[in-house]
Amino acid sequence: MFPMLNVDISNIWCSVALPQLLESEQAVALAHAALTDGPEADFLAWLGGDLGPELDRVEETAKRIGETAQVLVVVGDDTAVLAARALLELLGGRGGVQVLFAGTSFSTAAWQRLCEQLEGRDFCVQIVGRGTLALQSAVTVRALRWLLERRYGTEKARERVFIVTDPEKGVLRQLSAAEGYAAFNLPGTLGGYASALAPAALLCLAAAGADIRGILAGAASAAAAMDARSFENPAWLYAAARKILAARGKRVEYLVTAEPAAWTLGRWWQRLFAARGCLGGDGLIPAAAEIPADLQRLHGILCDGASPVLQTILRFDPPAQRVPVEMDWKNLDDLNYLEGYTLDYVQEQAVAGAIQAGADEDVPILTVECGPLSPAALGELVYFFELSSGLAAGLLGRDLYEAEPPAAWEQRMKALLARREG
Amino acid sequence: MFPMLNVDISNIWCSVALPQLLESEQAVALAHAALTDGPEADFLAWLGGDLGPELDRVEETAKRIGETAQVLVVVGDDTAVLAARALLELLGGRGGVQVLFAGTSFSTAAWQRLCEQLEGRDFCVQIVGRGTLALQSAVTVRALRWLLERRYGTEKARERVFIVTDPEKGVLRQLSAAEGYAAFNLPGTLGGYASALAPAALLCLAAAGADIRGILAGAASAAAAMDARSFENPAWLYAAARKILAARGKRVEYLVTAEPAAWTLGRWWQRLFAARGCLGGDGLIPAAAEIPADLQRLHGILCDGASPVLQTILRFDPPAQRVPVEMDWKNLDDLNYLEGYTLDYVQEQAVAGAIQAGADEDVPILTVECGPLSPAALGELVYFFELSSGLAAGLLGRDLYEAEPPAAWEQRMKALLARREG
Repeated sequence: MFPMLNVDISNIWCSVALPQLLESEQAVALAHAALTDGPEADFLAWLGGDLGPELDRVEETAKRIGETAQVLVVVGDDTAVLAARALLELLGGRGGVQVLFAGTSFSTAAWQRLCEQLEGRDFCVQIVGRGTLALQSAVTVRALRWLLERRYGTEKARERVFIVTDPEKGVLRQLSAAEGYAAFNLPGTLGGYASALAPAALLCLAAAGADIRGILAGAASAAAAMDARSFENPAWLYAAARKILAARGKRVEYLVTAEPAAWTLGRWWQRLFAARGCLGGDGLIPAAAEIPADLQRLHGILCDGASPVLQTILRFDPPAQRVPVEMDWKNLDDLNYLEGYTLDYVQEQAVAGAIQAGADEDVPILTVECGPLSPAALGELVYFFELSSGLAAGLLGRDLYEAEPPAAWEQRMKALLARREG
Repeated sequence: MFPMLNVDISNIWCSVALPQLLESEQAVALAHAALTDGPEADFLAWLGGDLGPELDRVEETAKRIGETAQVLVVVGDDTAVLAARALLELLGGRGGVQVLFAGTSFSTAAWQRLCEQLEGRDFCVQIVGRGTLALQSAVTVRALRWLLERRYGTEKARERVFIVTDPEKGVLRQLSAAEGYAAFNLPGTLGGYASALAPAALLCLAAAGADIRGILAGAASAAAAMDARSFENPAWLYAAARKILAARGKRVEYLVTAEPAAWTLGRWWQRLFAARGCLGGDGLIPAAAEIPADLQRLHGILCDGASPVLQTILRFDPPAQRVPVEMDWKNLDDLNYLEGYTLDYVQEQAVAGAIQAGADEDVPILTVECGPLSPAALGELVYFFELSSGLAAGLLGRDLYEAEPPAAWEQRMKALLARREG
């Protein structure tokens, strides 16, 4: 199956010449080889392996969660969790449990709201993290475990906790052994972070009723096609084009989408490309915007060739079911010129208008043609961005496998917390 | 009542010298005078007027909506709508109707999701816009009016539509007259846009059960205090500091918050400061981030003095009800050093850690001390940002009263839609 995803670079020629792009071929090839050929080169390698047994187990667990709970609380601050949330918002739950995400803040208000949502409803907890949990997640895990034990008793509570973590080591692995929680594997590293495409990372999607086999099939087909070592590979085009645009003075990359449900995808993308490996020197600062909601106000940023901005537009195929614009014989709002149009057609013209307005002002625009809003196409899209972020790091001379050092703010926070008055 | 809001500039001295700040006094005074003294100077002027009758009417209408509907759909793409949504997410609904926001996109998926949410539930529609509705809102209004008429019949449907618009002119005023919809006033302009602080703009908040009198009282107290023509005025400090930082090479301003519920507030702020009047030349590109969720990945952007970034941190007072970190005698996660701490204390240290980490690297940081997460304090905050954006425009030599020309993307889109293939 050939991937549906495609990158259109026809709107960057205002800033980039073809020879420049072709000159970068060797650099991209080296960056790609670094991801796949090194001794620790497990970059998304598990996609080629036999997912069968683990996937069966994840789906069985999802079914069991649906039988004993109305709500699944997912705790973790890894980008894999944010990707799962993004996929769930795009695909929607289909008859499964409600999924709530927690452990991303120390907010008292957020914790109280979560408690209200769990009031009188049965729930399970999924904990996701490869290494040490972020402090905000660890604190939330304590609170949720205590809530579970109070509600169901120590023994029954054990059956309601599911851990997704490193296959061998780490504090969550120890926790699952000590407490008898079911544990699932989160293999593969990208600079210490997990891919969003391990079956266990998709447990909450399965519990919500989404088609995780479809997502993984799309990712696997992308992994095969995007192993190509040429500019036929859309990840090559994307990584090379943004690198050249950054070298030519662009400082900010806006991911622009016309689907409001893709907002969390934008946040995930932002974190992926804000990682240490993708920044510094020629690295681009990632930001997100929505068509048309943000354009009225942001067009001064997005459609000005003199501003240090490039756009990457995500474009989805029209939906199977079309919704026509309603007619009104009074026509007070003067919209009858839209007669016969469907919403998706109007949306397409809004996107085309944004591209034209940007191109008129020599704003470089990369368009990612994502295919339909389907599980397989979204699996491809996630793989595409994960691979591209690896290539982006390589093009900046970085090694995405190298673990990031603890952030200074985290050390500062922990020092403040460790300091006891009195 | 003295406002609770305060701006702390103690972490900008790495980039700004005190004399520079003081030198800008006259420019800020002129920008402020332009907002209040011109012939069309209705900048937030209605806050000083008698809100009583309109506010009573808004609250009565909110009550009526609660009696006849479970859901209120708010349509409009004005920043005032986004502000209402931001306030609602921060305050939470309290026993009122569920509020859904629509008309911000042409997405078929978003429309279908809205229809699912309205299935089997009684609903009303609030339409907000000063002038011509954005196309995405106008199309949604047609669809919702048709849905109402099909569900309730033409006559009964009339009682379920509420229009918030210009007191005299415009297509929505005509629509309300032609169809007999109740209409409310959205006075005051900021470059063609409405303030979020008109009573009618808060109708959906009242319907959700939020305390809109508290919000307006906070805004009115801020309006009185922030009329001060000196650097005791926090809006002066904020506008002047960011102007000087921009002149010293900063290009991007991140609004950083530790409350996940403040995310939409960040998007509203982003649109407010991305308006044409606030951009160009020395204007800053606005972006948003969350502590601690985004810091692990974004610290390379946020905590690097060499990057063209300044931070504006929103800080709220601790909540009245404190939540302690749970204890665990097994201490597998090694968190027992947090014994005796409450969540809000840990949150405060996370914010302090972020500020220290930024300050260590000479990243300029403005801190907005917002007071508690209360209606009055949030009313102040909205007023503060609306006034500051006006001052920011003035400092760039712009007139915020001047209407923005139609954006190029919108003209392009409309041209594409008007072109019929024959």
